[in-house]
This record gives sequence, C-alpha cells and structure tokens, in this order.
Amino acid sequence: MLSPVPVVLVSCGGIKGWKANLITIAWAGNVCSDPPMLSIAVRPDRYSHAIIKTTGEFIVNVPSTDQVKATDWCGVVSGRDVDKFAGTGLTPAPGRKVACPMVMECPLNIECRVRKSLELGSHTLFLAEVVAVQVSSEVVDARGRLNLQKAGLMAFAHGHYFALGHHLGHFGFSVRKRKKRGRT
Amino acid sequence: MLSPVPVVLVSCGGIKGWKANLITIAWAGNVCSDPPMLSIAVRPDRYSHAIIKTTGEFIVNVPSTDQVKATDWCGVVSGRDVDKFAGTGLTPAPGRKVACPMVMECPLNIECRVRKSLELGSHTLFLAEVVAVQVSSEVVDARGRLNLQKAGLMAFAHGHYFALGHHLGHFGFSVRKRKKRGRT
Repeated sequence: MLSPVPVVLVSCGGIKGWKANLITIAWAGNVCSDPPMLSIAVRPDRYSHAIIKTTGEFIVNVPSTDQVKATDWCGVVSGRDVDKFAGTGLTPAPGRKVACPMVMECPLNIECRVRKSLELGSHTLFLAEVVAVQVSSEVVDARGRLNLQKAGLMAFAHGHYFALGHHLGHFGFSVRKRKKRGRT
Repeated sequence: MLSPVPVVLVSCGGIKGWKANLITIAWAGNVCSDPPMLSIAVRPDRYSHAIIKTTGEFIVNVPSTDQVKATDWCGVVSGRDVDKFAGTGLTPAPGRKVACPMVMECPLNIECRVRKSLELGSHTLFLAEVVAVQVSSEVVDARGRLNLQKAGLMAFAHGHYFALGHHLGHFGFSVRKRKKRGRT
C-alpha cells in the first residue's frame, strides 16, 4: 500500500507491573496539529498492544540510520521473550511527561498519551496526544532551530529501509519568486 | 513532529457536481491490513475536505520525484481558485472502483472509500478502506513482483522533500543467517 512510511521505535511499559518494551512501528503518522496528535497502528497480539492499552502511554522514538539494525530487530522479536533494551544495547531514559522510558540514542522522542483507540480489524489504531517532544542537541542548529537533515533519518518502503537521499526542494518552492541579485 | 512522512497527491471530486481536485497530503498512513485501510488528515477549511466528506471517495496517488513540483504546487494553491489537473498538466484517468479520477503519471494509485471520519481538532481524520490498487507497469519486475525501488519515491521531512537514498537493509536482515558458501 502506501510507501514510503516512517519507521519508528515505540517504547512503552516500565510501569504498572509491565516490563519496559520496544516495538518497531511503520504504521505511524501525524494526524492533527491542534491539539498535536499522532497515530500508531498495532496488532492486538503484540506484547506492546496490551501495555499501551493498559497504561495509555507510549513514546515514539524516531531512529537515525545508526539504529537501523536495532530497529529491525525490535520488529522481529517479541518483548514476551526478550528484554529489548538489553538486546539492542539502547539506553532507556525517563520521559518528561509520561512514565515509560524513551530511547536515549534516537534524535527525536515524542511522548504520547492515548486519547482514543479504534479496533479496525487486524490492527488497533491508537490516537494519541503529543504531550512532550525531546530533541537531541545534534539536530539543532546554531540559531536553535530544528534541522532534521542532520538527524540521518530513514524511511521504510515495501519491506526495505532507506536513508533519505538528495534534497528535492522546500515546501512552497514551486511558487517562490527568485530573488533578484544586485550586481556589485 | 514525526518525520519523515509520505507525501501524496490525493485526488477527489469529478462527481456529484464537484470539480475534480488534487490536494497534497503529508499526513497519510497505512492503518490496517485486514481490511486494508489507510488514513488521511485534512483541515476542514480545505476545498477537498467538503468533497471527500460529501462523496466519501478519494484516491491516494503516490508520486515519484518526477512529480515533486506538481506535488508542491498542489499543496500551496486551492482548488477553489484553480483547476489543478490543468495547472499541473497531470492526466486524470478513471478509477477502477471509485468514481473520482486518479493521476495517470503517479506510479501507485490507491483507491479509497471512507469508512469513518473523526474530528480531532484542526484536522479531520478520514479512515478509508482500500478498494483497488493500480500500479504502473514500470514498477513491476520481470517476474510480476512489485519493485517500489524502481518507482523513484520521495519522502517529506520538516518542510523538505527528499528522494529515497541508499538501501540500508531488508525487513528481518538483523536476524538473517548468512548462507554458507560452498567452495568450488
């Protein structure tokens, strides 16, 4: 179906008797800007499904290409059987607004609280409000602005992970007037 | 928030008195595999919002990098003022299962029928069932398998369009055993 899509490490648990866990999700997206919300689609048989359903919290950790192997591995093994933080060597760190841990190594951590869940069939769609965002200092430029081009992000298309490639343009480039250059 | 995300041309209208229209959407995602469903988030003040709300149909046209300028332009002008098919030079072609036109030039066309719409705040989330998929012959390999790497897909991250870059691995690569090579 739709490609390319984001591929993220969702962390959850570490509270209410649940182990901290990581699940790789390719079916995630922004869905609203006010309030800021995103969605993730999770199969009910996944270990993280019960955790998120019970605790109502998760963190979307956006990985860089440095974490591609860990991202892949968290998508093929189950948190029922293994400790995914230990297995990947990724570092759990406390969330600011939610109780579950985030992944220190990921350049972008989006803390979410579930507002609604919809049973669609094979997947449950969790619609969640973004309650905090943490950004690694490496992806902020000298003026304090977010520069995601420094983050080394990756995308997922039809079963394959890709780095982002060459820059094609900025939003609005098709209507921007060229600045006249003065001669010196 | 979440990056990178897909960037698609959504076509709608051409029925029930509505003009055919195109809207660029970056907030789209797969949400269910059985039944196959995807979601798009659209602001209520957009011209396409009323069209999709009234007709219950749209097509997600996944553009290649060849259509980056058209994709950008359809995101900055309104279908209230201009005919976007005429303005971009893109070719409308009939959908197979829905009545609105698809974009001929896009390598992947996903025909959708709205099953549910949710008013989240600034955006309405349309949850739609995929009722047909059309794939351009250039992205199918000699064995008849879909090869999206041939499609020249692009992603959108924090206001910038990017081509997909180098291949990082296939889903499951982190646990795949290397095949032993026999000596000859």
